[in-house]
Amino acid sequence: MNKFKFELIYKSKKSNARVGRIHTPHGIIDTPNFVAVGTNGTLKAIDNKTVEELGLQLMFCNTYHLMLQPGTKTIQAAGGLHQFINRKTPIITDSGGFQVFSLAYGTVKDELKSKGQKKQDGSVLKITEEGVTFRSYRDGEKILLTPESSVQAQKELGADIIIPFDELPPYHICPNKLKKSLDRTHRWEKRSLDYHLQNRNNQAMYAVVHGGIDNELRKKSIEYLSSLDFDGFAIGGSLGKTRDQMIEMLNVLMPLVPQEKPNHLLGIGDLLSLEQSVTLGIDTFDSSHPTKCARHGLLFTRSGNKKIIHANNKYNLEPIDKFCDCHTCKHYNLSYLHHLFKAKEVTGHILASIHNIKFMVDLMQNYRKKILNDEI
Amino acid sequence: MNKFKFELIYKSKKSNARVGRIHTPHGIIDTPNFVAVGTNGTLKAIDNKTVEELGLQLMFCNTYHLMLQPGTKTIQAAGGLHQFINRKTPIITDSGGFQVFSLAYGTVKDELKSKGQKKQDGSVLKITEEGVTFRSYRDGEKILLTPESSVQAQKELGADIIIPFDELPPYHICPNKLKKSLDRTHRWEKRSLDYHLQNRNNQAMYAVVHGGIDNELRKKSIEYLSSLDFDGFAIGGSLGKTRDQMIEMLNVLMPLVPQEKPNHLLGIGDLLSLEQSVTLGIDTFDSSHPTKCARHGLLFTRSGNKKIIHANNKYNLEPIDKFCDCHTCKHYNLSYLHHLFKAKEVTGHILASIHNIKFMVDLMQNYRKKILNDEI
Repeated sequence: MNKFKFELIYKSKKSNARVGRIHTPHGIIDTPNFVAVGTNGTLKAIDNKTVEELGLQLMFCNTYHLMLQPGTKTIQAAGGLHQFINRKTPIITDSGGFQVFSLAYGTVKDELKSKGQKKQDGSVLKITEEGVTFRSYRDGEKILLTPESSVQAQKELGADIIIPFDELPPYHICPNKLKKSLDRTHRWEKRSLDYHLQNRNNQAMYAVVHGGIDNELRKKSIEYLSSLDFDGFAIGGSLGKTRDQMIEMLNVLMPLVPQEKPNHLLGIGDLLSLEQSVTLGIDTFDSSHPTKCARHGLLFTRSGNKKIIHANNKYNLEPIDKFCDCHTCKHYNLSYLHHLFKAKEVTGHILASIHNIKFMVDLMQNYRKKILNDEI
Repeated sequence: MNKFKFELIYKSKKSNARVGRIHTPHGIIDTPNFVAVGTNGTLKAIDNKTVEELGLQLMFCNTYHLMLQPGTKTIQAAGGLHQFINRKTPIITDSGGFQVFSLAYGTVKDELKSKGQKKQDGSVLKITEEGVTFRSYRDGEKILLTPESSVQAQKELGADIIIPFDELPPYHICPNKLKKSLDRTHRWEKRSLDYHLQNRNNQAMYAVVHGGIDNELRKKSIEYLSSLDFDGFAIGGSLGKTRDQMIEMLNVLMPLVPQEKPNHLLGIGDLLSLEQSVTLGIDTFDSSHPTKCARHGLLFTRSGNKKIIHANNKYNLEPIDKFCDCHTCKHYNLSYLHHLFKAKEVTGHILASIHNIKFMVDLMQNYRKKILNDEI
C-alpha cells in the first residue's frame, strides 16, 4: 500500500497557483509550502523538535552528507532517519548527485562567479555510465555512487519522498554535451525508479526534470519522465543565471508538468523567486536561504528585510515583526538581538533562525489563503 | 525598602552545609545553588527564556562586557538588564574588576600555566588609587573604571546582586604586595559600598573577600568587610593553584563568614569543588564550566561524565542520562548527539548546553534535599 497521495484542493482563477495537500506516511504537507534544509539531519542552530513546533511540514536532508556522516547504517540502526533525528513529520532526501557533481564541476554559484571556469578539487575520481566514484572527505574512502546505491541509501534513510540519481551538468556547457548529459540523467533516473519499484518501502519518488535553460530539452525531459511511474516532479539542473531566466523557463515547463502530481522546485527559496513561482503552480521549494540569512543577521518581516546589525536597531524595543508570534518575537526585541549579533553570540543565530523559519511558515500559509481567495 | 533578604532554613547536622533562600526583587534563589554565566546577557547557545524554563534561579552577567557592548545606556534605555535580556528572575553582575585585572596580569589560569610570567596586552593604561584606566577592545576608547563608576554602571544595569570594585592580584605576588593590594581592595570596596548606599536602588551588594591563599589576610579581609553594611559575601581573588589549596583556605575562612548573610564562591563550578564547598557552607557558585564543557561535548550525568564523540555513543540509542527530563534527554539519543558533534552542527552545542544546565539545576536541588536529610 502506498500512503503517498496528492490531493489538489483548489486552482486559483487568477493564475496557475494551486492549493493542495500531499499525504505521506508521516502526515500532511499543505502546498504551496517551503521546505527547510537540514543537511546533516538538523537545521543550522535549531533542533528538530523546535522546528516541528514552528509548523514546518517538510524538511530536506542530504543523502550525500548523511552517507558519509554518520553513515546510513547508523541511521538504520536507530530505526531510520525520522527516529534518528526525532522528526515525526515528513522528510525528503535527495540523491547525492547534486553534491557529487558540485565537487566535480563546482557549485552553480561558484561557477557563475568564476565565469565558466570549472572547479575540481580532485575528490571525484571517475564519472561513467555506471555512476560516479569519489573520495569521502571524511576518511578518504573510495565510494561509488550509482542510481541503485543512491536509492538504496535513501531506502535505508527512509524519507517520505526520495529523489533519483541525476547528473548536475555545469551551467557553462555546450548544447551537445547538455543533451548527452540529459540522456544519461534520464537513463539514471529510470534505473533509480526501477530499483525503487522493487521495494517501494512506502516512499514516494519524484523525478528530476533537467534540460538547463534549453526549453526544448526541458520539454523533452518532462515528456520522458512523465511517461514513467514517478509520484511527483522536481525541477532541477541549472535554472539559469538570473531569476528572469528561471521564470522564463518555468513558464514553458510548468504547463507540461502533470497536474495531478505534486511538483518541487529544487534549491530555490528567496522571497521573490518564491512569489513568482507560486503563481506558476509550484507546490514546494527547498532552500537554506532563510536560515543562512538568519545567521548573517538578515531578518524577514512582513514589511521587508531587516539587517539586525544596522544602527537603527540599537535602541529599538520593538520585536523583529510585531505580527509574528514566534518565540523570538514574543520574548525579545531588536535592541537585544542587535546586541547579540554585535557580541557574536550564537544565541543570536538561534533566535534569528527561529524567526526566519516561522516567517516562511506564515508566508506560505498566507499564499495558500490568497490562492483560495483568487487573490494571486 | 530593601526586598533583599536571606532566610536560613536548615543547617546540616553532618557538616556546615546549609539550606537557605535568598529573596530578591525578582524572586527567590534556593541555596545552595549554581549560578550560570551569561557574560553578554545570554548563556552561550541557550536563550534566556529557555534558561528560565530550565529552572536556573540566578544568572551571572559581566559588567565589563556589557559596559563595552552594548553599553549600559542602551540597557538602561530598555528598562534595565532584566528587561533588555528578558529575564524575569534574579541576576548578579560583577564589578568589571576581574576582567580589567585579567587584562593587566593575565587570567589566573594563564598565569598559573606560565609559571609566574605576567601577561600584559597593553590595554590597561594606568592603575592608581583612583581606579584603572584601560582601552576598550571594541573602539579603543579610554575608560576609567573606579569603584564609583563600576557601581554606577551596575546601578544602570539594575541586577539584583552587585559586586564592589576590587583588585584581582596575580597569584604570583610577594606577600608585601598582596597585603598592599588587599588594603587597596578594601578601600575600593568601602568606596563602592558608600556609593551604593547613596541609592540602594533595591539592589544588594556582596563584599568580595580577598587575601589570596594567605589565611591571615583572608581572616583580616573577612573581619574588615563584615564590619561594613554589605548584604552578603563573595569569596574572590586567587583561590590557589589546586582544589586542595582552595578547600584548605575555605576551611579557615568559612567559619568567619557571618552566618546570617548569604555567601558566594566566585568562578568555581566544577563538580568536585562544588561537592566539597557545599559541605563548608557555600551558598552559591558561578561558573561557565558546565556550558563550556557542553560545547566541548562533555556531558554531565548521574553516572559520571560522558564524552559525546566517544565511539561508544555512535550506536547508543539511550538518552544522555535516563534520569534527566530535559528537552535534550526527552527528545534525542546519544547516537544522534554523537552525529551532531561529529558533523560540527551548532545544534549539538545547543542540546548539550541545555542538558548540562539542567543537570546543574537538578544536582543543586539534590544537594538541598541531602542537607535537609542530614546526609551531607
